[in-house]
Amino acid sequence: MDKQEMHHTLMAAKARKGISWDTLGEAVGRSPVWVASACHGMNSAPYEAARRIAATLDLGDDVIAALEAFPTKTWDQAIPQDPLVYRLYEIVGVYGATLKDVIQEKFGDGIMSAIDFEMEVDRQPDPKGDRVVVTLSGKFLPYKSW
Amino acid sequence: MDKQEMHHTLMAAKARKGISWDTLGEAVGRSPVWVASACHGMNSAPYEAARRIAATLDLGDDVIAALEAFPTKTWDQAIPQDPLVYRLYEIVGVYGATLKDVIQEKFGDGIMSAIDFEMEVDRQPDPKGDRVVVTLSGKFLPYKSW
Amino acid sequence: MDKQEMHHTLMAAKARKGISWDTLGEAVGRSPVWVASACHGMNSAPYEAARRIAATLDLGDDVIAALEAFPTKTWDQAIPQDPLVYRLYEIVGVYGATLKDVIQEKFGDGIMSAIDFEMEVDRQPDPKGDRVVVTLSGKFLPYKSW
Amino acid sequence: MDKQEMHHTLMAAKARKGISWDTLGEAVGRSPVWVASACHGMNSAPYEAARRIAATLDLGDDVIAALEAFPTKTWDQAIPQDPLVYRLYEIVGVYGATLKDVIQEKFGDGIMSAIDFEMEVDRQPDPKGDRVVVTLSGKFLPYKSW
Amino acid sequence: MDKQEMHHTLMAAKARKGISWDTLGEAVGRSPVWVASACHGMNSAPYEAARRIAATLDLGDDVIAALEAFPTKTWDQAIPQDPLVYRLYEIVGVYGATLKDVIQEKFGDGIMSAIDFEMEVDRQPDPKGDRVVVTLSGKFLPYKSW
Amino acid sequence: MDKQEMHHTLMAAKARKGISWDTLGEAVGRSPVWVASACHGMNSAPYEAARRIAATLDLGDDVIAALEAFPTKTWDQAIPQDPLVYRLYEIVGVYGATLKDVIQEKFGDGIMSAIDFEMEVDRQPDPKGDRVVVTLSGKFLPYKSW
Amino acid sequence: MDKQEMHHTLMAAKARKGISWDTLGEAVGRSPVWVASACHGMNSAPYEAARRIAATLDLGDDVIAALEAFPTKTWDQAIPQDPLVYRLYEIVGVYGATLKDVIQEKFGDGIMSAIDFEMEVDRQPDPKGDRVVVTLSGKFLPYKSW
Amino acid sequence: MDKQEMHHTLMAAKARKGISWDTLGEAVGRSPVWVASACHGMNSAPYEAARRIAATLDLGDDVIAALEAFPTKTWDQAIPQDPLVYRLYEIVGVYGATLKDVIQEKFGDGIMSAIDFEMEVDRQPDPKGDRVVVTLSGKFLPYKSW
Amino acid sequence: MDKQEMHHTLMAAKARKGISWDTLGEAVGRSPVWVASACHGMNSAPYEAARRIAATLDLGDDVIAALEAFPTKTWDQAIPQDPLVYRLYEIVGVYGATLKDVIQEKFGDGIMSAIDFEMEVDRQPDPKGDRVVVTLSGKFLPYKSW
Amino acid sequence: MDKQEMHHTLMAAKARKGISWDTLGEAVGRSPVWVASACHGMNSAPYEAARRIAATLDLGDDVIAALEAFPTKTWDQAIPQDPLVYRLYEIVGVYGATLKDVIQEKFGDGIMSAIDFEMEVDRQPDPKGDRVVVTLSGKFLPYKSW
Repeated sequence: MDKQEMHHTLMAAKARKGISWDTLGEAVGRSPVWVASACHGMNSAPYEAARRIAATLDLGDDVIAALEAFPTKTWDQAIPQDPLVYRLYEIVGVYGATLKDVIQEKFGDGIMSAIDFEMEVDRQPDPKGDRVVVTLSGKFLPYKSW
Repeated sequence: MDKQEMHHTLMAAKARKGISWDTLGEAVGRSPVWVASACHGMNSAPYEAARRIAATLDLGDDVIAALEAFPTKTWDQAIPQDPLVYRLYEIVGVYGATLKDVIQEKFGDGIMSAIDFEMEVDRQPDPKGDRVVVTLSGKFLPYKSW
Repeated sequence: MDKQEMHHTLMAAKARKGISWDTLGEAVGRSPVWVASACHGMNSAPYEAARRIAATLDLGDDVIAALEAFPTKTWDQAIPQDPLVYRLYEIVGVYGATLKDVIQEKFGDGIMSAIDFEMEVDRQPDPKGDRVVVTLSGKFLPYKSW
Repeated sequence: MDKQEMHHTLMAAKARKGISWDTLGEAVGRSPVWVASACHGMNSAPYEAARRIAATLDLGDDVIAALEAFPTKTWDQAIPQDPLVYRLYEIVGVYGATLKDVIQEKFGDGIMSAIDFEMEVDRQPDPKGDRVVVTLSGKFLPYKSW
Repeated sequence: MDKQEMHHTLMAAKARKGISWDTLGEAVGRSPVWVASACHGMNSAPYEAARRIAATLDLGDDVIAALEAFPTKTWDQAIPQDPLVYRLYEIVGVYGATLKDVIQEKFGDGIMSAIDFEMEVDRQPDPKGDRVVVTLSGKFLPYKSW
Repeated sequence: MDKQEMHHTLMAAKARKGISWDTLGEAVGRSPVWVASACHGMNSAPYEAARRIAATLDLGDDVIAALEAFPTKTWDQAIPQDPLVYRLYEIVGVYGATLKDVIQEKFGDGIMSAIDFEMEVDRQPDPKGDRVVVTLSGKFLPYKSW
Repeated sequence: MDKQEMHHTLMAAKARKGISWDTLGEAVGRSPVWVASACHGMNSAPYEAARRIAATLDLGDDVIAALEAFPTKTWDQAIPQDPLVYRLYEIVGVYGATLKDVIQEKFGDGIMSAIDFEMEVDRQPDPKGDRVVVTLSGKFLPYKSW
Repeated sequence: MDKQEMHHTLMAAKARKGISWDTLGEAVGRSPVWVASACHGMNSAPYEAARRIAATLDLGDDVIAALEAFPTKTWDQAIPQDPLVYRLYEIVGVYGATLKDVIQEKFGDGIMSAIDFEMEVDRQPDPKGDRVVVTLSGKFLPYKSW
Repeated sequence: MDKQEMHHTLMAAKARKGISWDTLGEAVGRSPVWVASACHGMNSAPYEAARRIAATLDLGDDVIAALEAFPTKTWDQAIPQDPLVYRLYEIVGVYGATLKDVIQEKFGDGIMSAIDFEMEVDRQPDPKGDRVVVTLSGKFLPYKSW
Repeated sequence: MDKQEMHHTLMAAKARKGISWDTLGEAVGRSPVWVASACHGMNSAPYEAARRIAATLDLGDDVIAALEAFPTKTWDQAIPQDPLVYRLYEIVGVYGATLKDVIQEKFGDGIMSAIDFEMEVDRQPDPKGDRVVVTLSGKFLPYKSW
């Protein structure tokens, strides 16, 4: 079972059972965003997490194995088109140089890791319309000189 | 004075005075990230904010006018190359579909606005290496049917 | 049933029944353009609208479910080739900077939303040749400073 | 004087005089959008219109000649980046196939002309936030068979 | 039957019957280039023309219906590779600005329509090698001011 | 004097003298399209033609030398944007496969040369709107087998 | 049988019989490079050559017909990746302007035809390592003025 | 003096002196193609060759030093547009897979070097029109296994 | 059996047997990186190596033949997306000009061969986190002058 | 002084003094590759290193400040063209999937850092031609789950 088939199997089971990412995350003892990324085939799951995801969704060993496999992480569109994803791309475009400047002033020459990295999504109630809050947290990696 | 000349003038004055984005943000009474984006020419500043930025950096009316001007927001590289900015692009690529799924499950069919939007950068101390925390907050906009 | 299969099923039923978008829009109590966009898989339909579309075209529950699903909105060609669609792209290219200037002078720094958005198509009789009138209406969103 | 220099000259004079596109359109007896497009160098102005634009802005014969010149209409970005313009591009992407379907059902096989074409921008007050209304009107051109 | 299947069916029947585009054009009472473009799926045929094409090639009602359908006109390669087609592209590249200049001097600011358009291909005998003569005829469309 | 400077010099002189391409072509004893292409820097002119172009426009030896130079023929936009030129590109896209089919049926496997090539532009009066007629004539070159 | 199926059939038969391009060329009475290009589907073969290729490889009439068909010549990668083919592309990039200069100095303004064209591949023994010798021969085509 | 300035200096001197690449090659004791490539800035010249090129063209030490410098070999257009250079690109596209097949059958798995490489251009008289003959010679490099 | 099927067959057998690249390399008497590249279809294996790979994995003659075949070496993404591969691409981008400078200062004008080339991957223990060490070794090829 | 001017200043001084990267590296007490990358503007130098580089090359404080500045790391060509750099790109293309497989088998799911990274270039004498040895060393970063 490759990652794509795994993804379709997981999404179908999740819909059939009516389980949300929050519930699944709780069942696994992990963040819902990370669980979702593993189910989308964009992160490999350690065995215990894979086992719990499969158990919660009544799926078998082939799904566990597919969840454990190391993914090749690629995406279809260099410039994303779906409006939700494009807005994130636009934020990188509009604020990229600003973020580089602010982060490097605070931390020195280096980057925020996208590997030693985690992310959460929250709903923040607001009378003028609720807000989506996305929190990115990555280890600062200083450039090495040698 | 166009936005590019304004940017160079502001960066030179900021370096000369040794003022950080945090300090400048405080002086203006605004978030350091927003102040930086205005100084990078990627947001227009309301008059009062523009006046305070210029005052703090001992700059004149032409800088104020340039800060108030409505920018044309463009960026040079459709796929960014600088490693700090690329990592943000990579996060959008790797986690884009995951974020769409998690956000739309929580909020319904719609997007996180990149216009009614704000963002902060924080340093989170960590014994294994401090972490960069970037918080995005955008109003949820549901798709309209008509 | 995914959006593509749904689209083909809907188009075939519509052709078989000889129902126009105007008639279908009336039956659903919605704009024909929005109904068409939902049938093209580019908008999700609320349950009641989906039910009426399916009922009018004698289609079943799987079509209703597919109409309700949240779409991933993508298109095949970054620069469209079909002459009808290309002319719209050309209008954006030729008049984009003009529209930005006129809109932002009238409304301030911000954008016309493509999410809180609606659109109509009308036929305007004209002795020199009838005219296509496309009306776009989007909420003005001012940039936030923070 | 080429179109670019003409554009900068016109924009500077317009700002100096504090004249809006609406006022300029009225003074010329034309639509503000068309006047703006001519001042942006994307349409040639007939002599009388060019003369009135220059007169209203106290500019000379070289500007009149530049306004009359036939422009080469090009734009910098195949996929626009500024958010206001990108939203228009996104509308073409998301609704292009829908518009083709709706227009050709109403008019037959053909296109909406982008040459025998006009466009207006209006502000529609709305308690939930004012709306930008853009109206496109192009002559329908049927494909010829021969 | 979609346009692609229609195209293959028509080409196979044409080869089987050994009928040239000239003969088919004559049988239909239309230009061979237009008939070929309809059979290639790049133009919709009015019913009578579609009926005659099908009759001449002993094909049925599904082909007639497919010939009548309004095509989505797209092509595979933004820069064509087949040498015959590339030479046409090269002519547009090398002579594009020249043609714009010559046509607009003769007709005023506007374009040659590619919709109200027809085209012929002829063989011109020449002792130094016969020549291909392609004649394009499109209605001149002046830009509108409004 | 390089081709670009030559082009600007020639266009300025032509405008100053109020000479059309037709008149210039007549003075040189050549087709106006070819003369225009040489003045646009896209063809080298034989000495006698170069001399007459310069003489008609009261220009000197440096212009003659520049007209004689062998050009490097390039264009700015792989997909042209100006509407007049784009329509020609669109014709190649829409009718490319059709033209290949019709030409190769008539002539055998080979191409229409874009080097041993000439082109004319004519105005054809028409009560429904005058037509632009562009005639391309290129030597047929059969593929060689060896 | 289309060109792709023909190609696979021919390659399989050639491997099965253990016949080299040199041997096949000799059997056909043609250059091995041309025979290979026809078998790769990039040139049409005259009947007699097609018949001999098929006979030598014990293949039937459908292969003969496919070899005779006029190919649409396209390639997958605008910038080739396979190292052997990339090196040829690199030679065009590095030496393109040099070749244009040397050829046009020797022949006048014009090009080397890629249609009236032939090519050979030879092995030249060399103590420091044998050399691949590729010889291109194309008719010089002078630009026409008209 | 960088390579670009060197190139212009050399071309101007060569034109002034009326010296052909053949003559220059003879004076230097090298192939005219190699000498041209060095003068185009696409190869570094050993001191003695550089000295002779400069001497023949009455140029000084700065030109010698620039000829000796190691070039960064780049070209402007990934897909060349000038017809002479495009034809070479087209040959790589049309015949690339054929050449790979023929060369690797003759030599084994490996490539023709573009570094240990030389090239000549000759004129071959032909009653049907003289031919350009380009001869490429590169060392065969077998892939290493390890 | 083509290279893709061969690759899947080899990977499945390797997983089933639980054999690492190191073990397989040892069994074949070759570097694990080279063995992996052959199994990924990116290098042809000499018969003896192919035989041993197949034997170790209990696979048959069709796999041996597929391993011996000369591959067409292509990759899917001009700019790789998987983070592990992208980092290598980034290193080429960031350090490309530096490497050219350092290598050519040490060796003269020329390149490091990617054909007469080998590569190893090692794990270097490090208290701050183990390091991946990749060693590239390619023959230096000096540019030829002729 | 920006990074580009700094680079030209450093290269000119280095040439004038006839100092190699090895010598400069020794004077600074750092790797010659890292020193070169800092002088190419692709790494920021800590103050002490910057001071020694400037001192060795007799350059002033503005060069020191420019060496210390945090660079924006970009490169001109997404697919490099200079043959030395292209070969590195080709190695990433040909061996990218192989390296991912070998590294992740050895280390688990993760990447080789390009930030906590160092690189050396060595000359390895070889009777069949000396070899360029490039050694990359990057910290292994495991993907985090959360």
